[in-house]
Amino acid sequence: MSSNDLKVKSAVIAGNQIFQTIRENGPILRSELATLTGMSRSTVSLHVEKLLQTQLVKEEEISKNGDKRKKSLLKLAENAGFVIGIEIKITGISIGLFNLNVELLDFYTEQVSVGKGPGFIINLVFETIDKLLVKNKISSKSIMGVGMGIPGTIEKNSRIIVGPKFMPGWNKYPLRKTLEQRFNCRIILENEVNAMAVGSHFVGTGKEVDNLLFVKIGTGIGAGIFVNGELYRGSSGSAGDIGHISIDDLDIPCHCGNYGCLEMIGSGAAIAKRGEEVMKKGGSEFLTKIYEKENKITVEDISLGADHGDSLCLEIIKDASKAVGKVLAKVAGFFNPSLIIIGGGVAEAGEKFLSGIREMVFMRSYPIITSELQIKKSSLGRKACVLGVATTVVNEILSENSITDLLHDLSQK
Amino acid sequence: MSSNDLKVKSAVIAGNQIFQTIRENGPILRSELATLTGMSRSTVSLHVEKLLQTQLVKEEEISKNGDKRKKSLLKLAENAGFVIGIEIKITGISIGLFNLNVELLDFYTEQVSVGKGPGFIINLVFETIDKLLVKNKISSKSIMGVGMGIPGTIEKNSRIIVGPKFMPGWNKYPLRKTLEQRFNCRIILENEVNAMAVGSHFVGTGKEVDNLLFVKIGTGIGAGIFVNGELYRGSSGSAGDIGHISIDDLDIPCHCGNYGCLEMIGSGAAIAKRGEEVMKKGGSEFLTKIYEKENKITVEDISLGADHGDSLCLEIIKDASKAVGKVLAKVAGFFNPSLIIIGGGVAEAGEKFLSGIREMVFMRSYPIITSELQIKKSSLGRKACVLGVATTVVNEILSENSITDLLHDLSQK
Repeated sequence: MSSNDLKVKSAVIAGNQIFQTIRENGPILRSELATLTGMSRSTVSLHVEKLLQTQLVKEEEISKNGDKRKKSLLKLAENAGFVIGIEIKITGISIGLFNLNVELLDFYTEQVSVGKGPGFIINLVFETIDKLLVKNKISSKSIMGVGMGIPGTIEKNSRIIVGPKFMPGWNKYPLRKTLEQRFNCRIILENEVNAMAVGSHFVGTGKEVDNLLFVKIGTGIGAGIFVNGELYRGSSGSAGDIGHISIDDLDIPCHCGNYGCLEMIGSGAAIAKRGEEVMKKGGSEFLTKIYEKENKITVEDISLGADHGDSLCLEIIKDASKAVGKVLAKVAGFFNPSLIIIGGGVAEAGEKFLSGIREMVFMRSYPIITSELQIKKSSLGRKACVLGVATTVVNEILSENSITDLLHDLSQK
Repeated sequence: MSSNDLKVKSAVIAGNQIFQTIRENGPILRSELATLTGMSRSTVSLHVEKLLQTQLVKEEEISKNGDKRKKSLLKLAENAGFVIGIEIKITGISIGLFNLNVELLDFYTEQVSVGKGPGFIINLVFETIDKLLVKNKISSKSIMGVGMGIPGTIEKNSRIIVGPKFMPGWNKYPLRKTLEQRFNCRIILENEVNAMAVGSHFVGTGKEVDNLLFVKIGTGIGAGIFVNGELYRGSSGSAGDIGHISIDDLDIPCHCGNYGCLEMIGSGAAIAKRGEEVMKKGGSEFLTKIYEKENKITVEDISLGADHGDSLCLEIIKDASKAVGKVLAKVAGFFNPSLIIIGGGVAEAGEKFLSGIREMVFMRSYPIITSELQIKKSSLGRKACVLGVATTVVNEILSENSITDLLHDLSQK
């Protein structure tokens, strides 16, 4: 490496350091940047000029700390670009539009069966994005990244979606290519539960908790795992697939070929199915009335029934939540997390569902495991997944590597 | 930082880089070091001189690759110091003496109940070490580190031993202080199963496997976890305590206050207990003969009985191994490892024990979880723990931080 190359390299490293400091601490004065980075004022100013040229940093005249004189503060140019977070659920799609501060600018959700196939669903997603962009006066060109969360396993090395349950036509569908053809920018594919865990770790209930589980209880059941502050995917990308952990004293066959899987009793699909069975046997007046009107029973109906004191609805919720708790007691015994976050549609049943989980986890765990363990409901609701993928995309766009590349290209001009 | 400080700092960084390259690749030529590190021949020679002064590196005249001219090769001075690995088991102690290449120079093991208390056991350990040092003509002063593996939880922050099962008197015993008073060197305390996992990851069956479980089945049952190439301890230091994961259809009460814990059926203690019960009911002629002679039944007896075709011994082994498999199926479903290593005394029962584990794991797991999963017996036998703690100690002694400190001190002289 020549002495000039070395100079360029160290300038790029310093420039990136200043950028990351602005991102974390902005709005911030140049003098504060000098203090935080240990660089001289003149060095800081030099690099700030470069960063202003990238347009990822902007300057604002603000009076700070009650000082009457206006001062020039630096911050991330949060609207220099935008990212889109997409969630594909078994029962619908959600789309979030974010700026570079991962602030949600607009959100759209629609009920639609994923069974309609990837062609239909992706078209609907693209149409919805077009509408959102027009509505928010954002040009397609300023989209810097798109992230998509899907309820299937993303194969660890190929990053291809493999054999998603309930999703005919999606196995090995060229999702990345389809997204790349529509958006000429950074594309991220992620398992939906992993994405929810990322969202919770960076902006939600699990903010800055190093070892946590995000458990999604929706149509299916899965968990995202954070180990030492990093998402853990497992050897083949399917770590956290707790919906197919079996309960030893349950012998219901599962679509996976095994029997007694947690999903067969604890999931939204199982709860709704059991509600319908109970109703058909004439066990619940509350559910019978709903069925006569709607011709179906949903998890929300059963949750409502439980709130109204319907004993069979209460029992269904209790059995489901205790089954989840039974499996989580085992998982906690192995993993010893400090936080378990419960999210997904079924978690909206709230405390009556969480209490069943807590009861089993605390009853069936070794004391040292639960001494500091908390079990909380997700604070992100139905936005957890889009927030998670958007966070991942923004973190990649503004990562050390990306900024380093950007500054390096600039220095070559 | 002054310009001179900067020079010292970069020299120390380069020196450390050369040391680590020698440790990984030695015996190695100076010219090869230059190629691998990208430094000039003269820079390499300069740093090698410093490293020779530390006495952690030595030079040997060897003819390499059939070349008749002798060349000067550099390598780790493996006998510049020694480390001791100690295992405290519920039923005995083991001590290993190692050089800096983590080569086992001597090994001693003795049956003794840990119930005799820490005072008695530690005294025995010290006496044994003294004998080993004399026998191997190694001075106490050249011991650079001592590692101890214990069958209890080491509290994550305080590194104090907490509430070990079956170990009266050991709870919060000042082990570190006792070891420090005897040996004025680096002391490492580690849970025995974590130590075994470290041993397996660095020198055993799990060499260079990033995501693995080491499952110890001895008097008790526990697991050490490697995540992305690093030991994972959990939030309170008790991750992997799978002996107390409960089996839903088992209602035997456990000493931990819970019921149905895996240890109550899968551990060495449980196997021996069940053997005695079966024998007392007159169910096994094989065990009756042994009991008449020895007045007790051990796991080894039952394993031997199974090898001789005694149907009740076979059944006990099968039930125990299938219980372990049941729990490991759940753990694998959550953690998605690529390798599970089975070690500990009971694993010595060999394939008949492993087959029961495999049967349940592969029967009760989601296919994608087991597509690449291997379940193997530990290759380290009863030396796994001492090898593991010795590896940890040597890795610390020769870590970047330690070598950096050493070179920095040298540069100040």
